[in-house]
Amino acid sequence: MAATNRQFRLAKRPEGKPDRDTFDLVESDVPEPGPGEVLVRTRYLSVDPYMRDRMSAGKSYADPWEVGDVLRAGAVGEVVDSNGAGFDEGDVVVGNLEWADYATAPGAELTQVNPDLAPISTSLGVLGMPGRTAYFGTTAVADVGAGDTFVVTGAAGAVGSVAGQIAKLSGARVVGFAGSDEKVAYLEDDLGFDAAINYKATDDYRAALDEAAPDGVDAYFDNVGGPITDAVFTKLNVDARVAVCGQISLYNATERPTGPRKLPGLISTRARIEGFLVQDFSPRFGEATKQLGQWVASGAIDYRETVTDGLENAPEAFLGLFEGENIGKQLVKVSDPDS
Amino acid sequence: MAATNRQFRLAKRPEGKPDRDTFDLVESDVPEPGPGEVLVRTRYLSVDPYMRDRMSAGKSYADPWEVGDVLRAGAVGEVVDSNGAGFDEGDVVVGNLEWADYATAPGAELTQVNPDLAPISTSLGVLGMPGRTAYFGTTAVADVGAGDTFVVTGAAGAVGSVAGQIAKLSGARVVGFAGSDEKVAYLEDDLGFDAAINYKATDDYRAALDEAAPDGVDAYFDNVGGPITDAVFTKLNVDARVAVCGQISLYNATERPTGPRKLPGLISTRARIEGFLVQDFSPRFGEATKQLGQWVASGAIDYRETVTDGLENAPEAFLGLFEGENIGKQLVKVSDPDS
Repeated sequence: MAATNRQFRLAKRPEGKPDRDTFDLVESDVPEPGPGEVLVRTRYLSVDPYMRDRMSAGKSYADPWEVGDVLRAGAVGEVVDSNGAGFDEGDVVVGNLEWADYATAPGAELTQVNPDLAPISTSLGVLGMPGRTAYFGTTAVADVGAGDTFVVTGAAGAVGSVAGQIAKLSGARVVGFAGSDEKVAYLEDDLGFDAAINYKATDDYRAALDEAAPDGVDAYFDNVGGPITDAVFTKLNVDARVAVCGQISLYNATERPTGPRKLPGLISTRARIEGFLVQDFSPRFGEATKQLGQWVASGAIDYRETVTDGLENAPEAFLGLFEGENIGKQLVKVSDPDS
Repeated sequence: MAATNRQFRLAKRPEGKPDRDTFDLVESDVPEPGPGEVLVRTRYLSVDPYMRDRMSAGKSYADPWEVGDVLRAGAVGEVVDSNGAGFDEGDVVVGNLEWADYATAPGAELTQVNPDLAPISTSLGVLGMPGRTAYFGTTAVADVGAGDTFVVTGAAGAVGSVAGQIAKLSGARVVGFAGSDEKVAYLEDDLGFDAAINYKATDDYRAALDEAAPDGVDAYFDNVGGPITDAVFTKLNVDARVAVCGQISLYNATERPTGPRKLPGLISTRARIEGFLVQDFSPRFGEATKQLGQWVASGAIDYRETVTDGLENAPEAFLGLFEGENIGKQLVKVSDPDS
C-alpha cells in the first residue's frame, strides 16, 4: 500500500456560515493501526448538520473540534489491516472515523456491516444513525400514534423522511415541511405523506398548516427550528409532544436568535417539549436497527441518498446541507471497492 | 335575609394591564338556589393570576369571560340555604363561585370543608388549588428528587412557596426568585430555602444563579416567565425538567412577547419542558390534599396568607398580584361568621 492519505482538518472556526475556507485538505501518510486497532479504507463518509456545532468553541454535547484537528464523521469502509482488533481484511465496518481516505480506529468502536443485507451506504443513513434518530424521536420522544397529526421539518432529509414514514406506519396523519417542489412531490407521491409544504414557496406557514393539519398538531419532530417551528407551535393540540432533534436554521446564527416566546402557550396545551440525542438510546440500538431493516426489506420504508463523489468534495456536501440541496441522506463517496 | 347582594362583573376587556375600571361592582338581589343548588355566603374569595387570561377574548384553557359576566373565583363560604343539594345550613363549602357576597352553585360542584382541621381560608391556598398545583408540578411534572437543584419563580407566592418546600422535603437544593428583601428573608429564614434572589435588586440573573445554583439546575418550576426564565434556561443540566405553571410576567403584554430562542439549548441538555394544569390531576386530588394536610399539621410546610378586607377591594387584591404585593396566598375576606 504505497497510497498516500488525505485528511480534512478544521482550518479555522467559522463565523456564521462555514465556507470552503473552513476546511483544509492535507496529505499525510497512511496511518498504522496500533494494538487492537484496524486500518479502514473509507468507502462512504456521512456529513451531518450537527457537525456545525463542533466547529464552534462553545459548550455543546459533543466536544468542539480544535483548529487543526482532523474532522470526524460517521463512515463506512473496508478493513485493510487489523492489529489484533477482531476483524479480518475485507470486513466492512461502520463507526466514527475521520474525514479521510484511510483512518485507524479501535476495533471495539466499530460495528461490522453485512453487505449482503443492504447497500453498505445505508449503514450511514436509513439503517444507521439518522434512521435510529428518526426511530427513537418518533416513537419514544414524540410518542406518535394512530389518529395523531404528526408534523416533521426537514422532511425530505435523512432523518425527517424516515420519521415521517414511521409516523405513517403508526397510523398518524403526516405533514412535512421541505424546501422544493421536487421534495414535496417526493414526500407526497413516493413516501405517502398526507401533505407536504414547500416552505420556500410561502411565508405564511400558519395558513399552510391550517390546510395541511386542519385538526391541529399532536406530535412535532423538529429538525429545523425558527419561523416554521414558531408556526407549528401555534397549532399544538392539548397534550402535544415536540421532539427537538435539530435546529439547522439557527446553527449558523452569529447572534443569539430570538423569536416569539413559547412557554405561555404550553400551559393551555399542556404540551411537552423534549430535546434528545440518539446516543441516549444506545441500549436499544439493536431493536431499532432490526425494525428499520425489516421495514426497508419489506418496502414499508423507502429511502434515498444524495451521493457526492470524491473526498475532496466533502466540504461542498456538508455546506449543501444548509442550503437544503440533498434529498434523503447526504453521503460522500470516497472510494470504490474495485479501485 | 333582607340583605342585598353585590357582584363584580367584567366592565370591559383590559388592554394590557387591567385596572379598577376593568371591574364593575353591581348591587343585586340575593339569588335563590335552584333544585340541587345551595346558596353560599362567601367568607373568602381567591384571586389568582390565571384570571387575567379569562378577561381576554383569546382562546385559552378556560373560556373567556364576556363583558357583563359576573367574575368567578375559587371561594369558601357558608351554606345559608340548600335546595335538596345534600348540604346543611352552616356547612362550610369550597368551590368555583362568583365574586359576590352570595352565590348559588350546584351542590355537586362543591366540596365540604372541615373547619376543625385547619382555618377555612387554607382551602383556597395551601390545602386548595395552589397547594395542589405546587404538589403536582413539583412531584409529577418537575419530578424533583434528592440531589437535584430546584429553582422556582414567584417563590414567595401561594404556589411557589409550597413548591419550594415540597422540593426541600424531597432532598433538593432549593433556590427561589422573589421580588423583595422581605420575601427573600421569608424564603431563606422561615421556609428553609437554600438561597433566594431578589430579582428587583439585580438584572444579572445568570450571575445570581452562578452563586445560588453552582451545580446548575435540574428542575425548574416556572410561575413567571420572561428574562428570569431565560437565565434559568442557560443553566439547565442534562435531563433537566421544566414545569411551566404560569407566566405572570407576560400576561399583560399587548404584543406577542419575544425572547431568546430556547429550543437549540434543549438538544444538548435533553431537557423536557412541560406545561400543566392542576385540573388534569383531579383523580389524584385526594392524595395531594391528604399529604399537604399532614405536612401542614406537622409543621413541615409553612404557609402565609395576605388578606384584603372587603369584597369591594377584590380588584385591588387581584391587581396587586401583578405588582408582587402579596406574600403567600392572596385572599379577599368577604364576610365574618359573626356578621
